[in-house]
Amino acid sequence: MEWIPTSGRELPRYSGIKTFFRLPIANNKNEDFDVGIFGVPFDGGTSYRPGCRFAPSLVRECSSLGRGFHWSRGYSIFEKLKIADLGDCSTVPIDLEQTYQKIENYVLELLSFNKKFLSVGGDHSITLPILRALKKHLKVPINLIHFDAHLDTYPAAWGCEYHHGSFLRHAIEEGLIECKNSIQIGVRGPLAGSDDLLFVQKHQLKSFTIDDIRNKSIDEFVNLLPTFINGPTYITYDIDVLDPSCAPGTGTPVVGGLTTFEVQKIFRGLKIKNLVGGDVVEILPAYDFSQITALAGLDALFEMLSLLAINK
Amino acid sequence: MEWIPTSGRELPRYSGIKTFFRLPIANNKNEDFDVGIFGVPFDGGTSYRPGCRFAPSLVRECSSLGRGFHWSRGYSIFEKLKIADLGDCSTVPIDLEQTYQKIENYVLELLSFNKKFLSVGGDHSITLPILRALKKHLKVPINLIHFDAHLDTYPAAWGCEYHHGSFLRHAIEEGLIECKNSIQIGVRGPLAGSDDLLFVQKHQLKSFTIDDIRNKSIDEFVNLLPTFINGPTYITYDIDVLDPSCAPGTGTPVVGGLTTFEVQKIFRGLKIKNLVGGDVVEILPAYDFSQITALAGLDALFEMLSLLAINK
Amino acid sequence: MEWIPTSGRELPRYSGIKTFFRLPIANNKNEDFDVGIFGVPFDGGTSYRPGCRFAPSLVRECSSLGRGFHWSRGYSIFEKLKIADLGDCSTVPIDLEQTYQKIENYVLELLSFNKKFLSVGGDHSITLPILRALKKHLKVPINLIHFDAHLDTYPAAWGCEYHHGSFLRHAIEEGLIECKNSIQIGVRGPLAGSDDLLFVQKHQLKSFTIDDIRNKSIDEFVNLLPTFINGPTYITYDIDVLDPSCAPGTGTPVVGGLTTFEVQKIFRGLKIKNLVGGDVVEILPAYDFSQITALAGLDALFEMLSLLAINK
Amino acid sequence: MEWIPTSGRELPRYSGIKTFFRLPIANNKNEDFDVGIFGVPFDGGTSYRPGCRFAPSLVRECSSLGRGFHWSRGYSIFEKLKIADLGDCSTVPIDLEQTYQKIENYVLELLSFNKKFLSVGGDHSITLPILRALKKHLKVPINLIHFDAHLDTYPAAWGCEYHHGSFLRHAIEEGLIECKNSIQIGVRGPLAGSDDLLFVQKHQLKSFTIDDIRNKSIDEFVNLLPTFINGPTYITYDIDVLDPSCAPGTGTPVVGGLTTFEVQKIFRGLKIKNLVGGDVVEILPAYDFSQITALAGLDALFEMLSLLAINK
Amino acid sequence: MEWIPTSGRELPRYSGIKTFFRLPIANNKNEDFDVGIFGVPFDGGTSYRPGCRFAPSLVRECSSLGRGFHWSRGYSIFEKLKIADLGDCSTVPIDLEQTYQKIENYVLELLSFNKKFLSVGGDHSITLPILRALKKHLKVPINLIHFDAHLDTYPAAWGCEYHHGSFLRHAIEEGLIECKNSIQIGVRGPLAGSDDLLFVQKHQLKSFTIDDIRNKSIDEFVNLLPTFINGPTYITYDIDVLDPSCAPGTGTPVVGGLTTFEVQKIFRGLKIKNLVGGDVVEILPAYDFSQITALAGLDALFEMLSLLAINK
Amino acid sequence: MEWIPTSGRELPRYSGIKTFFRLPIANNKNEDFDVGIFGVPFDGGTSYRPGCRFAPSLVRECSSLGRGFHWSRGYSIFEKLKIADLGDCSTVPIDLEQTYQKIENYVLELLSFNKKFLSVGGDHSITLPILRALKKHLKVPINLIHFDAHLDTYPAAWGCEYHHGSFLRHAIEEGLIECKNSIQIGVRGPLAGSDDLLFVQKHQLKSFTIDDIRNKSIDEFVNLLPTFINGPTYITYDIDVLDPSCAPGTGTPVVGGLTTFEVQKIFRGLKIKNLVGGDVVEILPAYDFSQITALAGLDALFEMLSLLAINK
Repeated sequence: MEWIPTSGRELPRYSGIKTFFRLPIANNKNEDFDVGIFGVPFDGGTSYRPGCRFAPSLVRECSSLGRGFHWSRGYSIFEKLKIADLGDCSTVPIDLEQTYQKIENYVLELLSFNKKFLSVGGDHSITLPILRALKKHLKVPINLIHFDAHLDTYPAAWGCEYHHGSFLRHAIEEGLIECKNSIQIGVRGPLAGSDDLLFVQKHQLKSFTIDDIRNKSIDEFVNLLPTFINGPTYITYDIDVLDPSCAPGTGTPVVGGLTTFEVQKIFRGLKIKNLVGGDVVEILPAYDFSQITALAGLDALFEMLSLLAINK
Repeated sequence: MEWIPTSGRELPRYSGIKTFFRLPIANNKNEDFDVGIFGVPFDGGTSYRPGCRFAPSLVRECSSLGRGFHWSRGYSIFEKLKIADLGDCSTVPIDLEQTYQKIENYVLELLSFNKKFLSVGGDHSITLPILRALKKHLKVPINLIHFDAHLDTYPAAWGCEYHHGSFLRHAIEEGLIECKNSIQIGVRGPLAGSDDLLFVQKHQLKSFTIDDIRNKSIDEFVNLLPTFINGPTYITYDIDVLDPSCAPGTGTPVVGGLTTFEVQKIFRGLKIKNLVGGDVVEILPAYDFSQITALAGLDALFEMLSLLAINK
Repeated sequence: MEWIPTSGRELPRYSGIKTFFRLPIANNKNEDFDVGIFGVPFDGGTSYRPGCRFAPSLVRECSSLGRGFHWSRGYSIFEKLKIADLGDCSTVPIDLEQTYQKIENYVLELLSFNKKFLSVGGDHSITLPILRALKKHLKVPINLIHFDAHLDTYPAAWGCEYHHGSFLRHAIEEGLIECKNSIQIGVRGPLAGSDDLLFVQKHQLKSFTIDDIRNKSIDEFVNLLPTFINGPTYITYDIDVLDPSCAPGTGTPVVGGLTTFEVQKIFRGLKIKNLVGGDVVEILPAYDFSQITALAGLDALFEMLSLLAINK
Repeated sequence: MEWIPTSGRELPRYSGIKTFFRLPIANNKNEDFDVGIFGVPFDGGTSYRPGCRFAPSLVRECSSLGRGFHWSRGYSIFEKLKIADLGDCSTVPIDLEQTYQKIENYVLELLSFNKKFLSVGGDHSITLPILRALKKHLKVPINLIHFDAHLDTYPAAWGCEYHHGSFLRHAIEEGLIECKNSIQIGVRGPLAGSDDLLFVQKHQLKSFTIDDIRNKSIDEFVNLLPTFINGPTYITYDIDVLDPSCAPGTGTPVVGGLTTFEVQKIFRGLKIKNLVGGDVVEILPAYDFSQITALAGLDALFEMLSLLAINK
Repeated sequence: MEWIPTSGRELPRYSGIKTFFRLPIANNKNEDFDVGIFGVPFDGGTSYRPGCRFAPSLVRECSSLGRGFHWSRGYSIFEKLKIADLGDCSTVPIDLEQTYQKIENYVLELLSFNKKFLSVGGDHSITLPILRALKKHLKVPINLIHFDAHLDTYPAAWGCEYHHGSFLRHAIEEGLIECKNSIQIGVRGPLAGSDDLLFVQKHQLKSFTIDDIRNKSIDEFVNLLPTFINGPTYITYDIDVLDPSCAPGTGTPVVGGLTTFEVQKIFRGLKIKNLVGGDVVEILPAYDFSQITALAGLDALFEMLSLLAINK
Repeated sequence: MEWIPTSGRELPRYSGIKTFFRLPIANNKNEDFDVGIFGVPFDGGTSYRPGCRFAPSLVRECSSLGRGFHWSRGYSIFEKLKIADLGDCSTVPIDLEQTYQKIENYVLELLSFNKKFLSVGGDHSITLPILRALKKHLKVPINLIHFDAHLDTYPAAWGCEYHHGSFLRHAIEEGLIECKNSIQIGVRGPLAGSDDLLFVQKHQLKSFTIDDIRNKSIDEFVNLLPTFINGPTYITYDIDVLDPSCAPGTGTPVVGGLTTFEVQKIFRGLKIKNLVGGDVVEILPAYDFSQITALAGLDALFEMLSLLAINK
């Protein structure tokens, strides 16, 4: 099969059944694509505004505006990679544990066919089972590049260990990630307390706060980023790393965040040898009136695809 | 304490900390009020659009427009009843079973102080633990008056027995309600299948469909309603019984529904000797742009309060 | 000048500077039109949601959809009447008394040129100075046809006699209207108390509640309406007479209201010998997301124009 | 292939790539389905608010709430019919004539495989090429059942013969429909003039106005409807036949319209021997904030499918 | 009493009656809190879009997301300060002078108990009576730090001296502020004319325009700010100092404004010895669709609280 | 006639029939104004979201907030220039070629009276006929300053040469512009392919990408801009040059764009000897919920007017 998007010059962009980037649908995980994109429509781990279960659908809708040629890199992602829309991973809206198992199994199956993948959440709780699958399959901890306004090392809440603010704490405690090769980008306060921060510091995971990023030019900051040469690397992109002006449609927005331009510069400055996949989470359609949050999420997918295309 | 609302003629209606009907807050369940209104901000049982966890807050906001004199009945509810805002029942957003236990305990405590109560959901799953508490306290099954577009006798979904479409099935199976003295009002199709319908019929619970209501005048229909003379009676009011034009802000709207006028006529025609409480569920603020759904929910609370006031 | 609207068949309806019904602008009140329409963008008398100061602008915008041929009456209002857009009456947003004086003077000037007029409010407080002008010019009390969800006989609030809920009380107390030839249509509860009701009853102004209207067919109700043969008659149309489903964009909506179809039937059933003018008030653009409230207001203007055209 | 929808009890309804009623996609028009549903995302014939090119996408999104069991008829449409989502017909957003040709060819191909079909517009101009294809294939004029607020017999505008307000005039002038066996339902004023009306009357096409429908009970009206025994019959359903309260998301709304309940009763009362297809047009997502218009359109599709299922 | 917020880890953040930062309500001004936060729901001084009377309610709603630990300062405001929600100051929606008196008395009473305070407006006219109270109580003019897009030295409009664009002119003319120790931050054009500007210049109040701020790095700008060592200092924060992308929900937005990040840097760079209070004004909920404006306002409250906490 | 705006200090800004900047309407193109502003409400060239036909109306509405004194330049545009609102150019919504002819004729007539002009689109296809008129009247190619996220050199789509993404290609191919004196500002990817880029490069039109602008300070960038000393110069301003956070209301938004502050700096840095006119295009009201996009467009008009005023 030709894994290329429907052309907007032939069929108007608002036409047709909506898929990610207007790409063909793969009915099986072992078809001959390189990268599969799938949705994980789950918001059962949400502590404030729910509704990001509708994000895969809105991102597919906005994919109509997706184009493939990356001006800075000088190539089209669709010429370098065979990309497919895999549909959505099955989830259970009211059962986090069952959902975790389903996501883990889904990713394990993709990995068994040697596929790269990107997913569109869902709330940030979905990243934990993805990391579990990666660790189980690859046998080594993963380098994590974590874009977020929040540390996501929160303790249990209302008696529940697992929720959308604790995925990183569990990932660290379960040994899923290689902390010394992992970074956070864009975190900022206010915090509920200092414990979350101390946890990150204790594990020597490098947190680049918004102040770290903005006390110099964005180009200078990008030059400070570590490289990810050894081991597999995974990117998790929480849309609330962006300023609410750029991403109003999210569940727990925090003012004082990054712009989409800054994020693009950071993505383009990342040096990653073995990128295995990534996700975009926490897009909340019901608060995304003009769909600019979904477009920002689509752009993050595009940048991740262009990173996956580098070594092809 | 004087359990009367802040007057809109003294303090403008948009002013002040928002409580139900601008009523005083009761900090304890054993204060000297007659009826307590509380929120149950839980949407963990939702199968489609989540977000009704924000309904108690929006209904309190819209309570600014609440007034007390019932034109048809000729009295003010606030002169007949001492009504209090009890705040919200604690829930666990990602754990339905824990939440059920909390709600049941909350209601049991209210009942132990001999209080009447109304609650604002929350999705329709919250009614089950309320009925459990009533049954446990009163020792007899309850007469249920059930306003809804849906039968709510759906089977398990995604391996989960409990969700917002199955509360009635469980209530019947657990013997919580007196089916032969219970009714449904406003149910309509399409259905997922005929099983849900057969379940209701098997248990001899009377379902008044929208066709049953509208094939005569609303006054004639009201005259056909049974009376609720024997035993305790509870009203559960799912806002989607209303037509989407009257209640756009809900999670699973169904066209062809009732108007608020028809609902008022039905409420005013109900003959209930021992009303113990009621709830209003499934208001979804994120889709209630002009707040008319919340206003319709507020009006249902008002009508239930006026029913509670009759025998005072 | 030809007082006819710009044709939608020549210039697309969304084109051009917006005027009421796409009519020509009259720069002076003594030009040769029959009926002048003007805006009164004032919401300084509002007790809850302000913002109806933007109503004249939105109604002009929606006037693009206005057409002139009245199917039931069999003629075009633009063939019978020369109608002009007069622009807006000057008001002072933070001074109700100055505003009253400006409105009264504005209307007196129109009356001095023997013009009929319709206005678009503005909150309902603006009707009082219009009635004062009519009384002052005509020397006799006016028959009032008052569409509203509210009685508008409220007492002083926050120490202020004049606000959008008291215009009718003042009009009666000032002897501006002929109560025994005046009616209210569509009023309904809940009320703040019974005093407002008793005031109306005391003055023998006939209030047709929503129950009075709906306990028979709309045609039967229309036949019960009195005729307005003697004396000058004025219509004030508060958009909240409509159900919130038909008019979500208003400041103090009340559920259980009329439909636009019922209002059309009532307008078409009115028998008025000497209609001097009318107003449409309480349209609130910020809550009128799909502009259906403004369209309903435009339709009320259209029906009033068709009434004014009858004797031409 | 099994042409059945993805079950909401297995995969949550908000999950998966969106198709009409969650049905399988047919990649070719000659697969073994009975009825094909396709989108016609075209609004190039719009005179006021454009944007209904996004309607097929929104109706697919809302199809998540679609269920199959028709309570009144007592069967599931999916058990009687094999229904497929065919994707969208290709159109040219800025060229009405090319688009007409593409639609006509699309339908002709479907007819050549002996398929029934429903389409989701698009503005009302798209119905003309569908009728042309039907006439060309079937060789006889079609009985038309036309739900609409407008007569759609408007003359040329801005020098253009073809637009969304003139499809019926052209269909009649081209001899595509059998006027004496055709009806309009729900038309109402105001009109631009009387010519449009005279055209319909001259061609003896029966127009049931809103007054014709509402001057008796809806059941009585339904009994007055003619039957469609002879010849092929097609239904075109303009969503603006509904009142703006039920369908705020449309381009040229007209107050005083039908409710979804009334439309359901009419659909259920239609007696059609040979229904060949139908369309739902003029849904405008950008003004459909709570998606109730799309849901009303989905329900019309459902009722048409249940009509198609009768003789199976 | 313990003046600490309800924990989001115990009671989900969307639960409960809404107060500022989920803090306890103080029923009397002389309870043992350090800082009282109150609403001033008044928009009677508004020249364009009204509706900021609803701001206190929306800020309380969004306070659910408020957290206390200030990352840059390294402490939690709730550990340093006892903070209370005082409810709303009573106002008269249609009488600016009465409202001024009520606000002044309210603040005087707070000052008599030696309390610090923050308020949430309301339009910017409310700052004048606060400054009057401060001057009356403290006997000395106040240093004013004034964040705003506008100069607020406008002359009388429509014959009215007092409105939301003239508070600063009156404060200067009444001798309420110490001009030479006062600054404006973020002002920008276009202006109605040069008079407003000349007034500020004449009184030697330092205006930092957006150009003054952005022609160097934000850190460099912060270093240029004067210190406020002598005398009492008050901060008034008009949300329209922010760019409309960061604060779309306001009445008179001006493009080319500050980001929330820049505002945070400025707040954190302020050196104030005796901060007596502050306000956040001009948040307009009806235009704040995703609530990001209210969140930005909440953040300004947080920064002001952290400034108040410094010397504790 | 005095060509000055209605003062907001006399008539409240929300009052009156809406014109650009509240300016007088010129009924004829040869009245004694210097600059005419007109609308071109056409979106027939749109490839994705239509609806910018409503932009002239929304910009007029937001013009209420327009002020005249340019702080940086130190003068009021209304004192230097006589500016008029000319109403809208007639267009044909469903016929691009007829529309092109109408626009060209409209501009030619203005030029024949020696007028400067600004227009508010409409989609970007409308700029082509304006450039044709300029070339035809002035006999020389025009220097073009082109603000845009897109290159607008796209090839034919769906068999159509002319659409909103190809105006620049046609302008170049028709010899309408002086490429070597023309620039693009703000263009950015992703692109559909590299062809569009190669076209621009081949014609030696200088494209300043967002990276070109932001790899130095905005002041440094402004200093790099060429001057426009020789020949007539025209500015076309596509609102999507702005970041979606600043301009959510547009049809094909692209993340990573300019801020309104940066645009202001660029406008103020332009050195143009003979500016003949300009346009603002692609404002899409239906997605501009808080009207900040329209305000940004209004500001661009203001900056262009201040450029036109320089040599007066």
